[in-house]
Amino acid sequence: MNYQKYAPGYYPVPQGYSSWATKDHIEKAPQWCSVDLRDGNQALVVPMSLDEKLEFFKLLVKIGFKQIEVGFPAASDTEYEFVRTLIDNNMIPDDVTIQVLTQCRDHIIRKTFEAIEGAPSAVVHFYNSTSVAQRQQVFRKSPEEICKIATDGAELVKKLSQEFDGNFRFEYSPESFTGTEPEYALHVCNAVIDIMEPTPERPMIINLPSTVQMSMPHVYANQIEFFHNHLHKRDSVCISVHPHNDRGTGVADAELAMLAGAQQVECCLFGNGERTGNVDSITLAMNLYSHGVDPKLNFSNMPEICEVYERVTRMRVHERSPYAGALVFAAFSGSHQDAIAKGMDWHKHSDDSRWTCPYIPVDPVDIGRTYDADVIRINSQSGKGGIGFVLAQNYGFDLPAKMREELGYTVKSVSDRNHKELSTPEVYEVFCNTYLNKQDPLHITEIHFTRVDGLAANVDIEYNGKIHGCNSVGNGRLDAVTNAIKSVTGTDFALDYYSEHSLDSGSTSRAASYISINWPDGTTTWGAGTDTDIIQSGINALVSAFNNKF
Amino acid sequence: MNYQKYAPGYYPVPQGYSSWATKDHIEKAPQWCSVDLRDGNQALVVPMSLDEKLEFFKLLVKIGFKQIEVGFPAASDTEYEFVRTLIDNNMIPDDVTIQVLTQCRDHIIRKTFEAIEGAPSAVVHFYNSTSVAQRQQVFRKSPEEICKIATDGAELVKKLSQEFDGNFRFEYSPESFTGTEPEYALHVCNAVIDIMEPTPERPMIINLPSTVQMSMPHVYANQIEFFHNHLHKRDSVCISVHPHNDRGTGVADAELAMLAGAQQVECCLFGNGERTGNVDSITLAMNLYSHGVDPKLNFSNMPEICEVYERVTRMRVHERSPYAGALVFAAFSGSHQDAIAKGMDWHKHSDDSRWTCPYIPVDPVDIGRTYDADVIRINSQSGKGGIGFVLAQNYGFDLPAKMREELGYTVKSVSDRNHKELSTPEVYEVFCNTYLNKQDPLHITEIHFTRVDGLAANVDIEYNGKIHGCNSVGNGRLDAVTNAIKSVTGTDFALDYYSEHSLDSGSTSRAASYISINWPDGTTTWGAGTDTDIIQSGINALVSAFNNKF
Repeated sequence: MNYQKYAPGYYPVPQGYSSWATKDHIEKAPQWCSVDLRDGNQALVVPMSLDEKLEFFKLLVKIGFKQIEVGFPAASDTEYEFVRTLIDNNMIPDDVTIQVLTQCRDHIIRKTFEAIEGAPSAVVHFYNSTSVAQRQQVFRKSPEEICKIATDGAELVKKLSQEFDGNFRFEYSPESFTGTEPEYALHVCNAVIDIMEPTPERPMIINLPSTVQMSMPHVYANQIEFFHNHLHKRDSVCISVHPHNDRGTGVADAELAMLAGAQQVECCLFGNGERTGNVDSITLAMNLYSHGVDPKLNFSNMPEICEVYERVTRMRVHERSPYAGALVFAAFSGSHQDAIAKGMDWHKHSDDSRWTCPYIPVDPVDIGRTYDADVIRINSQSGKGGIGFVLAQNYGFDLPAKMREELGYTVKSVSDRNHKELSTPEVYEVFCNTYLNKQDPLHITEIHFTRVDGLAANVDIEYNGKIHGCNSVGNGRLDAVTNAIKSVTGTDFALDYYSEHSLDSGSTSRAASYISINWPDGTTTWGAGTDTDIIQSGINALVSAFNNKF
Repeated sequence: MNYQKYAPGYYPVPQGYSSWATKDHIEKAPQWCSVDLRDGNQALVVPMSLDEKLEFFKLLVKIGFKQIEVGFPAASDTEYEFVRTLIDNNMIPDDVTIQVLTQCRDHIIRKTFEAIEGAPSAVVHFYNSTSVAQRQQVFRKSPEEICKIATDGAELVKKLSQEFDGNFRFEYSPESFTGTEPEYALHVCNAVIDIMEPTPERPMIINLPSTVQMSMPHVYANQIEFFHNHLHKRDSVCISVHPHNDRGTGVADAELAMLAGAQQVECCLFGNGERTGNVDSITLAMNLYSHGVDPKLNFSNMPEICEVYERVTRMRVHERSPYAGALVFAAFSGSHQDAIAKGMDWHKHSDDSRWTCPYIPVDPVDIGRTYDADVIRINSQSGKGGIGFVLAQNYGFDLPAKMREELGYTVKSVSDRNHKELSTPEVYEVFCNTYLNKQDPLHITEIHFTRVDGLAANVDIEYNGKIHGCNSVGNGRLDAVTNAIKSVTGTDFALDYYSEHSLDSGSTSRAASYISINWPDGTTTWGAGTDTDIIQSGINALVSAFNNKF
């Protein structure tokens, strides 16, 4: 591969603009600006219809976005019509501001004002491209000519905002900022600010887009800090960032930029947007949330958000999309499952209400997901911890550690052999088939206990199809039954381990019992039993353990 | 949403470990370690079969990975068998080292050595979990007890490496590093280093995994620099990072860590791996490539790599996955298409061989993609630039700017009305139907020119189904035909614009002509014509422009 045909195409700022790096977390949520209906929509193979856009707009409002870029109304009739529909039907909530994009060209700016006339609150977002490559290849203009496009645009925007009816605020972007010399971009932005004359009461937004991501994220953050330090009327300007994701570092761009002085982030749900997408609003908000910062966006019903998004955009949420993908809470591997099961148990009994469960960054329940379906998933990579957790969580069986280990091997080999993930009912089925209340080849058909010196039992045992009556004694009921089985079958074994617990709550609850027995050849077999009678439950476990030898 | 239940769970290092932030790019590729067959495989709903793993292994070798973690052989028979298959069948190239993972537990370490006995070159990667949460919730052990797990493991690994046959190197990971106090993790790592006694000639690897991503990437980079400064035997230790992606910043973690002193990166193709995945090797390598650094991995056939990956993992490459996704070079929007078309054209005529095309971070051709299918894509968001580019690139029609604009509106409205993306042949069909060689209602059936004072034409014109013979004159052939049409149809119009170019190369090539005519009502209509005869081509364009009025 001919790597020599490339070179870094960005322009780092001088040293001295990295003070952001001394902070280790973000203290409050930025001003969120959704660009789903603009950058997101223009990146779809099939752009949204008017109805789909309206549904998406309502979803964004419900999540909590207060600033929503709704289109480039001068670019197409569809976009124009959508903006007019929102305004003419009073569909914009009082606390929400719409934003429209326009190039710095006369007729496009005019058409944009026609589109938003009468809007209760709108941001006019004007831009022109400033990068070295675009100046040279696309516009073939000098830096000063390119700057004049911006200042002419600013003057017209300011003039028309006084002529048209509506409550307007302004945003300017030096588009392709990441390929622009920062000193030059600063010069252009300051020239625009000088014309627009924002005040602290009516600030304007300067948006520094990572139109195409060209550098590592700290280089971008340093650029933002440079602007933070040198922009005119800083107290009247909101610095916005608009990261794309060409180098896979959109989230880092946004986060480090926030430390460096950025106050607004333009973003899309699930990182939709041209090429590799715009930065993902869900990841940014949930990253804040996981650090204990109010994200000011509500993702408590992630499954619903996924459903609407996938339907109206015809895109798919990737399985590994942070916080939202189908697999992002899933643990298949044994050691992870074991740690999660222990962590969940620890949290249940701990006074520490803070979420610190291993391998699960946020509680899935917080965003409408479930432990059952999403966390512990069973395949050939899974271990005793996870399989035990699934049985305990869903069916109440709290298996002894050694038995969990044995079941673990059985379940894994079933998954391995069938080359598929096992659902919770399938894991349960393996448990039942392998251990629970097994009645073949030995089955106790009737039993009476008499308390004498110790316990005497009168037992009818069906063994290999024949019924045997038998009297036996023991130091307890299980011991007496053990002796009866030994005598009828002519085998020798020793009861090694016994435990039991109630399976359901209430006085009619069933008991679950677990028994292991050791055999003269050094092997051990396990059995489990259930019954509303605790004695019968134990006997069932014993018989199951016995039957597992054959 | 109850954000109060969370707090940062990581431990930043003191100030003074951010000198990495003064560098703005990475100067050379790290030592790549693929963990696709380990972390990647264990995160699949259906893990790979033996044959699938072998195919994936060969793919990794072909891409250029020299260190490949092939499994956790003590965890399952399948993984054990895969490692033995590679060794016993001599399937490991001389310059490739396999790596196997093991917990720091006696019987697991022993089984691991059995699995790799006789390997020409293998890294034994042993680990134990060190985080505060795991010490407290999972192991319920003190820091010193946890450290002893590591040092006992190190001693056994060292001992067995002398007993077993093979060429072994070593890697140690304080697993769940990102939830561990860095000073404590350093203490554990140094204790392990002191036991393993690496040398510059036989270095060991200390891997600092972002097992669960808990902090912003610069916090992680500071931690790496802290280790870089304080690890024992630094010249005999290779620092490795192993980022996951829970906060969507895996790529940033790896890149900033490389600036901070990390020499190895453990990664997976397409960011596969548990939950949100491991860091994506493709993005990391191609980010270096796009900065002119030899990535030491070869992705020149990305479509093939996607195909194998999707088939054997049963996962899907997301449309927006950097450098690899179906949409990552796609431009649907008019302004982007226009800039790309101009950039491509500029590059064709420029001496600058460096790739700087707007909106396309790397040349798609370098990784086996095409401009046609991948870059300019046409839907209702598209513009004249892109549509013109598609026609020129695929069919050779280089439309005049004004005509491109008109065609742009037509194509967009077809896409908008049908609510679908248009393929290149569909765009061409719109062009043909709208402009090319139109013969209704007017059609010239025969024509003879005579050069007199100017040009005289004898023309047979079929108009609305009736044939008219007509003699006319003009200052050139087109003018004479124009006058004939006016006379027969009783209309008035003026030829406004004419251009033509050869459509194919060679002496038998066809010409393409474009004509616009102005009408008394102020409207303009366009037509295009083709013919091997340049005169006939122009007449066809004229007739098409005329017919477009009706």
